[in-house]
Amino acid sequence: MIWNLHGTHARAGDLAQLVGLRHKNFIFPLVEGGEYHTHRGIVRHDDLIGLPWGTQVFSHTGAAYFLLQPSLADLLLSLKRNTQILYPKDIGFILTTMGIGPGMTVLEAGTGSGSMTIALAYAVGAEGKIISYEVRPEMQNLASKNLSRLGLLERATLHLGDIGQGIAETDVDAFFLDVPNPYDYIPQVRGALKPGGFFCGLVPTVNQVAELLHALRRNKFAFIEVCEVLLRYYKPEPLRLRPTDRMVAHTGFLTFARRIEPGEDPRGAALMAEQNVDKTEGE
Amino acid sequence: MIWNLHGTHARAGDLAQLVGLRHKNFIFPLVEGGEYHTHRGIVRHDDLIGLPWGTQVFSHTGAAYFLLQPSLADLLLSLKRNTQILYPKDIGFILTTMGIGPGMTVLEAGTGSGSMTIALAYAVGAEGKIISYEVRPEMQNLASKNLSRLGLLERATLHLGDIGQGIAETDVDAFFLDVPNPYDYIPQVRGALKPGGFFCGLVPTVNQVAELLHALRRNKFAFIEVCEVLLRYYKPEPLRLRPTDRMVAHTGFLTFARRIEPGEDPRGAALMAEQNVDKTEGE
Amino acid sequence: MIWNLHGTHARAGDLAQLVGLRHKNFIFPLVEGGEYHTHRGIVRHDDLIGLPWGTQVFSHTGAAYFLLQPSLADLLLSLKRNTQILYPKDIGFILTTMGIGPGMTVLEAGTGSGSMTIALAYAVGAEGKIISYEVRPEMQNLASKNLSRLGLLERATLHLGDIGQGIAETDVDAFFLDVPNPYDYIPQVRGALKPGGFFCGLVPTVNQVAELLHALRRNKFAFIEVCEVLLRYYKPEPLRLRPTDRMVAHTGFLTFARRIEPGEDPRGAALMAEQNVDKTEGE
Amino acid sequence: MIWNLHGTHARAGDLAQLVGLRHKNFIFPLVEGGEYHTHRGIVRHDDLIGLPWGTQVFSHTGAAYFLLQPSLADLLLSLKRNTQILYPKDIGFILTTMGIGPGMTVLEAGTGSGSMTIALAYAVGAEGKIISYEVRPEMQNLASKNLSRLGLLERATLHLGDIGQGIAETDVDAFFLDVPNPYDYIPQVRGALKPGGFFCGLVPTVNQVAELLHALRRNKFAFIEVCEVLLRYYKPEPLRLRPTDRMVAHTGFLTFARRIEPGEDPRGAALMAEQNVDKTEGE
Repeated sequence: MIWNLHGTHARAGDLAQLVGLRHKNFIFPLVEGGEYHTHRGIVRHDDLIGLPWGTQVFSHTGAAYFLLQPSLADLLLSLKRNTQILYPKDIGFILTTMGIGPGMTVLEAGTGSGSMTIALAYAVGAEGKIISYEVRPEMQNLASKNLSRLGLLERATLHLGDIGQGIAETDVDAFFLDVPNPYDYIPQVRGALKPGGFFCGLVPTVNQVAELLHALRRNKFAFIEVCEVLLRYYKPEPLRLRPTDRMVAHTGFLTFARRIEPGEDPRGAALMAEQNVDKTEGE
Repeated sequence: MIWNLHGTHARAGDLAQLVGLRHKNFIFPLVEGGEYHTHRGIVRHDDLIGLPWGTQVFSHTGAAYFLLQPSLADLLLSLKRNTQILYPKDIGFILTTMGIGPGMTVLEAGTGSGSMTIALAYAVGAEGKIISYEVRPEMQNLASKNLSRLGLLERATLHLGDIGQGIAETDVDAFFLDVPNPYDYIPQVRGALKPGGFFCGLVPTVNQVAELLHALRRNKFAFIEVCEVLLRYYKPEPLRLRPTDRMVAHTGFLTFARRIEPGEDPRGAALMAEQNVDKTEGE
Repeated sequence: MIWNLHGTHARAGDLAQLVGLRHKNFIFPLVEGGEYHTHRGIVRHDDLIGLPWGTQVFSHTGAAYFLLQPSLADLLLSLKRNTQILYPKDIGFILTTMGIGPGMTVLEAGTGSGSMTIALAYAVGAEGKIISYEVRPEMQNLASKNLSRLGLLERATLHLGDIGQGIAETDVDAFFLDVPNPYDYIPQVRGALKPGGFFCGLVPTVNQVAELLHALRRNKFAFIEVCEVLLRYYKPEPLRLRPTDRMVAHTGFLTFARRIEPGEDPRGAALMAEQNVDKTEGE
Repeated sequence: MIWNLHGTHARAGDLAQLVGLRHKNFIFPLVEGGEYHTHRGIVRHDDLIGLPWGTQVFSHTGAAYFLLQPSLADLLLSLKRNTQILYPKDIGFILTTMGIGPGMTVLEAGTGSGSMTIALAYAVGAEGKIISYEVRPEMQNLASKNLSRLGLLERATLHLGDIGQGIAETDVDAFFLDVPNPYDYIPQVRGALKPGGFFCGLVPTVNQVAELLHALRRNKFAFIEVCEVLLRYYKPEPLRLRPTDRMVAHTGFLTFARRIEPGEDPRGAALMAEQNVDKTEGE
């Protein structure tokens, strides 16, 4: 079954999360008769099944936990992974900016550990479709397991292969490109994306951004925006409220663009040139 | 019909966006036989219907435009409104952190111009449900029109009333609270939210955050996080790449929490106290 | 006489600042018998001379002002200028990082409107010395006037010329380089700087930073650091405390380095390579 | 003798810094006949004296180091301390905003480990004067040692005592207040500061900022500004240029104000109220 955030009480088959001291947390599916062994004692699944979510429970040694539905962010952070995962701050902004919602078809490359694949598959719902390319068999295998665990594998088509060799799909609604050399694949991206479709590329360095901008312009993309999302946490102490001492300062640069069908008319060329400059100034 | 981002070609009934010089843009539904009057000439709808999205078009005076499907962000920014709207940077992070996806039931107060209502209704899909409270009839009316325009009204139940008087709904999956005095309604929020459910409150000042933190703790919420999302744009010039000169520095503080069912056991009280401190340090 | 921030009462010869409604402010020297014409009436200098600084005064039409010693930041922002000036946030960090203080000798290129020249000349005091190169005669002239107005011209030697043609000075303590192509002058910078001396370059784009890094490494600079200073203001309302809505998001990137005298020994080469990587991670 | 950044070659009596692998660094005074024992071998002072600064040197076991004049930032970070020190990013902005330069008289409370005292004493030069109050004898003792080591003690008058009991000095040019409860001392600050003088307070939490704002307004301070300085480092790799992964997100909030002498005239009261609102918006 598909992981979801519905339901008020823990049932067999649900993914459950136990959170203990020092934010130690465990995520596992509830199975009748099962046991979960924490560092601080055993919790029997049958004691959890039927409880309201959010309930305080105890291991056999008396260690306290809260029983929760794991959030999407918790799940993504708990993935088995060999690579950098995407951060919720970036995922949220990518989904909203590209308007990813129920029923959409989205192409992704590369799959990696499948964290973005999961977020996309969750957002497009049962009527949507994710197609994801990956060149490394072991990564594809890992992503497949991660998707299965959440019941999202049926919404995803995982291709093993290099998008430089061509992409079978056409007219997808949106394309998310997370590879080290995105600038090498923009003609293929254009071919797979529908007219007017949404593009997002994620890269860590400014050098990659600059190359990607060149490639997007050469391949008739416009409405280009480059940005970073920064997340600043506060210590939630009402009498001593202040930002945390340290923060994640950088995960990657997001580059958004739209596939455009310009004609030969020079008036349109001027318009297109203008669309790629300064739109975001002062926003 | 429901606004969507599917489809490769403009059809009658679709919401279309024309983008011209200086990023001037217009959003309107395509109607057979219709005309759109821009500042720089008339565009006939029949000339647009049937074109691939992204196509360059011209007004009768020769002004160039691109024909696009409006993005969610474009639609939110184009809403008729009397109040501050939410920014996509905040919306995306709220949706991802609370795991808002297809099929969920979400309660909101207040409705305002309906920008968050729209984002929520879009994300939960046809199987989901948004309930939104608002005390000002004129705002509710405006939100209703804004939702209708996108075909999303049927997913939303708009209540006219003060949540301080009580909330009819119970066991909703998530609660988004966007009122000036959120700390006054936390008992009602708790009553409406399912066990373990997700809470998010948005306020502009640190004074409000501090009061909200007090109210959440008194009402048995835990896993409290306070944060801000900052978005930094770059001028997309590959040879002169640099951040824009100015940026939006503040929209609001986001406070997230989970409804928790602690028992009387003192071991659990210690756990709960700990959950509200420092979880985010260094993340 | 030299502008200073000593003294408790306004005297003839002092630079004075009048600040009125909407932060309108005027900076001028006090002259016996003088008059200052504001948009909202005349203020007679003789009515100001002898007053304690900070006193509330009125024009002949009754408009209220405060009489202040202009701060360094106020003076820099009030300079007659043809170019971008440096912001106090950057100036302060540059001075502290390079340890600019009384008695130092600092070389600057280019002079521009003289805002950094003024900040440097103020910081090094009467025993210090600033040498500043500029290729545009009209800019040098403007900088000269700006320095004169504050009585700081005698601490500065203004050269008209291109540092690419050579720099007469040697063994200066610190070098501040604010030109569009700093990477073209690093051999000359090295020649002018004393062994172990401090370098700082200011450029607006990441492309320039990358080229500057190459040039510094080729010319035996180490301890390289690249950073940005961001300043976030809050609305100073104690009951509604929050960040301002907008902020300056970018002025420039600062690149700091030290002139190093490496030998031929390969152990030293390894050390030097390491000094240029990652020193700042997590700081 | 006074630590300085003049001189091209290491001399006996100079403070020297050796920087080795992994940025391990040592700061010590050069003494004829002395030896410095690093983890990786011994360096003889006589081998360093007479060398140009920046020279690569080796310990008796062959470990490579660079010999440098320690920067102000290096010295501040190397102080023996029992308390939080100020960061160069904050120090630089405080000095520039208050216009601290040669010849000024500055009052500080509390002294702490003396890091700000050192920065102030360095900036005001031999003609300037720092007066610093501290209630804890052991901290005053530590600050005294730290100032002595740099030859700056003669520019500082260290008082042991509580400024709540009164401040002997009057008419100081600027006042830096770094105590947990600055709002309790604003009448005393006003008494010590000259008319129109500069105030800066540093506190870590927003609650303290709010209380400080109340106290400043009650005590006739105006031109109030609240801000934070954020420093973002980049990895200095020209082919893979990007921000560091993590950063210091918060040290403290800076609150600046000027002592004002308002009269009884209601026009001036309006002006004063206005000076404390919104000046910084959009700057």
